[in-house]
Amino acid sequence: MTDTIESQVIEFGQRAKQAVRLLQQASTRAKNEALAYMAEFLERDSDEIERANRKDIRSAESEGRDASFIDRLVLNAERIRAMAEGLRQIAALPDPVGEITDLKFRPSGIQVGKMRVPIGVIGMIYESRPNVTADAAGLCLKSGNAVILRGGSEAFHSNLAIAERLRAALGRAKLPLDAIQVLNTPDRAAVGALIRIKDYVDIIIPRGGKSLIERISAEATVPVIKHLHGNCHVYVDEYANLDKAVRIVVNAKAQRLGTCNTAESLLVHENVATDMLPPIAQALMEKGIELRVDAAAQELLPEATPATEQDFYTEYLGPIISVKIVDSLDAAMAHIAQYGSGHSEAIVTEDYGHARRFLREVDSSSVLVNASTRFADGFEYGLGAEIGISTDKLHVRGPVGLEGLTTQKWIVLGDGHVRG
Amino acid sequence: MTDTIESQVIEFGQRAKQAVRLLQQASTRAKNEALAYMAEFLERDSDEIERANRKDIRSAESEGRDASFIDRLVLNAERIRAMAEGLRQIAALPDPVGEITDLKFRPSGIQVGKMRVPIGVIGMIYESRPNVTADAAGLCLKSGNAVILRGGSEAFHSNLAIAERLRAALGRAKLPLDAIQVLNTPDRAAVGALIRIKDYVDIIIPRGGKSLIERISAEATVPVIKHLHGNCHVYVDEYANLDKAVRIVVNAKAQRLGTCNTAESLLVHENVATDMLPPIAQALMEKGIELRVDAAAQELLPEATPATEQDFYTEYLGPIISVKIVDSLDAAMAHIAQYGSGHSEAIVTEDYGHARRFLREVDSSSVLVNASTRFADGFEYGLGAEIGISTDKLHVRGPVGLEGLTTQKWIVLGDGHVRG
Repeated sequence: MTDTIESQVIEFGQRAKQAVRLLQQASTRAKNEALAYMAEFLERDSDEIERANRKDIRSAESEGRDASFIDRLVLNAERIRAMAEGLRQIAALPDPVGEITDLKFRPSGIQVGKMRVPIGVIGMIYESRPNVTADAAGLCLKSGNAVILRGGSEAFHSNLAIAERLRAALGRAKLPLDAIQVLNTPDRAAVGALIRIKDYVDIIIPRGGKSLIERISAEATVPVIKHLHGNCHVYVDEYANLDKAVRIVVNAKAQRLGTCNTAESLLVHENVATDMLPPIAQALMEKGIELRVDAAAQELLPEATPATEQDFYTEYLGPIISVKIVDSLDAAMAHIAQYGSGHSEAIVTEDYGHARRFLREVDSSSVLVNASTRFADGFEYGLGAEIGISTDKLHVRGPVGLEGLTTQKWIVLGDGHVRG
Repeated sequence: MTDTIESQVIEFGQRAKQAVRLLQQASTRAKNEALAYMAEFLERDSDEIERANRKDIRSAESEGRDASFIDRLVLNAERIRAMAEGLRQIAALPDPVGEITDLKFRPSGIQVGKMRVPIGVIGMIYESRPNVTADAAGLCLKSGNAVILRGGSEAFHSNLAIAERLRAALGRAKLPLDAIQVLNTPDRAAVGALIRIKDYVDIIIPRGGKSLIERISAEATVPVIKHLHGNCHVYVDEYANLDKAVRIVVNAKAQRLGTCNTAESLLVHENVATDMLPPIAQALMEKGIELRVDAAAQELLPEATPATEQDFYTEYLGPIISVKIVDSLDAAMAHIAQYGSGHSEAIVTEDYGHARRFLREVDSSSVLVNASTRFADGFEYGLGAEIGISTDKLHVRGPVGLEGLTTQKWIVLGDGHVRG
């Protein structure tokens, strides 16, 4: 049985590999046309997609899923329009494929440069939100990759209904249908096979809860673009401006509680703690945020909950923030190096030298000066859309857009040149 | 025992991590000074390094190693000077660390860009040639990384003698000694531990035979920059110039036989085969190269050995080349996609459209037009030096120099900006 599943999944991989070779010849115009048709077909068939979605909703309800789970699953006309809009935005982005940079003459007479090219076959494994089907397929197509989509069983009918329109759009634009495939077998072993067929899949991008990503990372032999933790820090430096500090901390923590770029820990320099921590704490509490504080902060905030060591490692994804008073910029950066997850960290400071050191020395995928960690996002960074966020250090860090779905090869132009 | 080894290796990793944090504060000047001292100390202590090297040579001789093995192992004054010169060249290269690119204002008012930063801790596993100790340490230091070096037991004394001078140079430049460590336990389990301590080592770069690299890739949980095969092709297109075709094929195959960018397979378009294959074959045979040919080529070269299917997959690393006649550019590219290793492929053509398609559609780390595959090399590409070559597609492809030892993080500059 497992053998059968593995050979089925390999067939998906083989078809995807063939599609990649055909996509290498596809023009930017053809890819953009396909994206426009995708948007058009999703909107045209909105009712049928909603009907498929209702099957998934009914199953989820009969399984007793909670309201937030069902909210993530729901597709209505507005959400389908938003998917279509996302595809049109991807069409409007410049095509990254074939971009040649740094083409220079070498002493030997050859010209050497780099060309941006697709990675190849992307395996996309995700949960609940069916819009990921359209977003991921659109980004992969524009960047010249074939994608094998494996959504959660809870969105089975929705994902199939969306993918059917996406593939019809490929056909209309005369692009290979297998550039977008849905791994639609209910057998869970299919995921295990997909993340191990190195000869056919070049990269796995999981999107979902931490346990899904950890499990896939542990078992995959195909490289994985991982997004594990978001234990983000805001450091209020001794040269911080109070207004900016309050505004940034409140926005970073309280604008949205459940996102990975939400701040989970506040560090305050001891020289300004007396002046700044109470008003920051007040503003946070007005937003319903609980503070968990170290001993020094406790003296300024006697009502706050004491923090444990574990608090400083915790990504709450909820209305809590840990607070620590530090005696220097170095102590703040050492704390971030020890407790942080390498996602996004912000400093609030008016001091040029401190900003410069923080930018250089903090080893996170996003490092921000006088700006909220909430900006660490593909749309805010101008990527147009993101297929995921990477907390890995290799290949791509932070929001992953079109460029993160490509790689660069070397190109050499000569005229009969040989090596001496 | 294994537990002890693993905890010893973790201590190397912890010291390296600490060194990375200190290196983040190191100026370009300090790193260049250290590189200059490294060169100076190697030359100053040339005699002592040669004396240590003679111990390794005597062991190799008593173990009955062959002449080419011993040649790779030998250090003499000239080779030590070459190592020193390599370090001075690295000092002369621009510092990649901290380079900020693409810094742009976004509609929200923040400025977003990317900063180039070190990867962190590099584990370098290599065989025989002791000069790798200096090359790798120099490149890692310049790019702000700490390196843990694990050379082969056959070069044990040589590597230690070199590393001692390198570390003394770090001390003289007031940089952390643990930026360069030699994993000098004879226990082979040390390698197994090094490639699995993900919390301390960010990347493994193996250099050596295919079996070493395959074993490390299979067992490592730390990401590996792999260099597996170099089954490189030259395709003589129907619009090739005969003189250039002969020159390029002969150089690609015969300039050096044992390198990874040596051509192993020749594809010739059927329309020019009658005119071009015999003179190319003649020129190759004059260099002592044996041709293994498909049925169509056999008609033009009746004396040549018939090729088997396996020949077209083979990296000979010796005086043999496989030859196939193809009926189109598409057939040539399909052959390369099936049999090639994604290393380096060249087309010989005067046709603009064919050159353009070959450059775009061939998915190899280097793609060359009218130039020998032998150019696929860090020095020829202007990297200054290479720590290895990557046949992987992610993170870095082809020759790996300073830039391949770095990654990019996002930076955001604001002035109290928050997300709306």
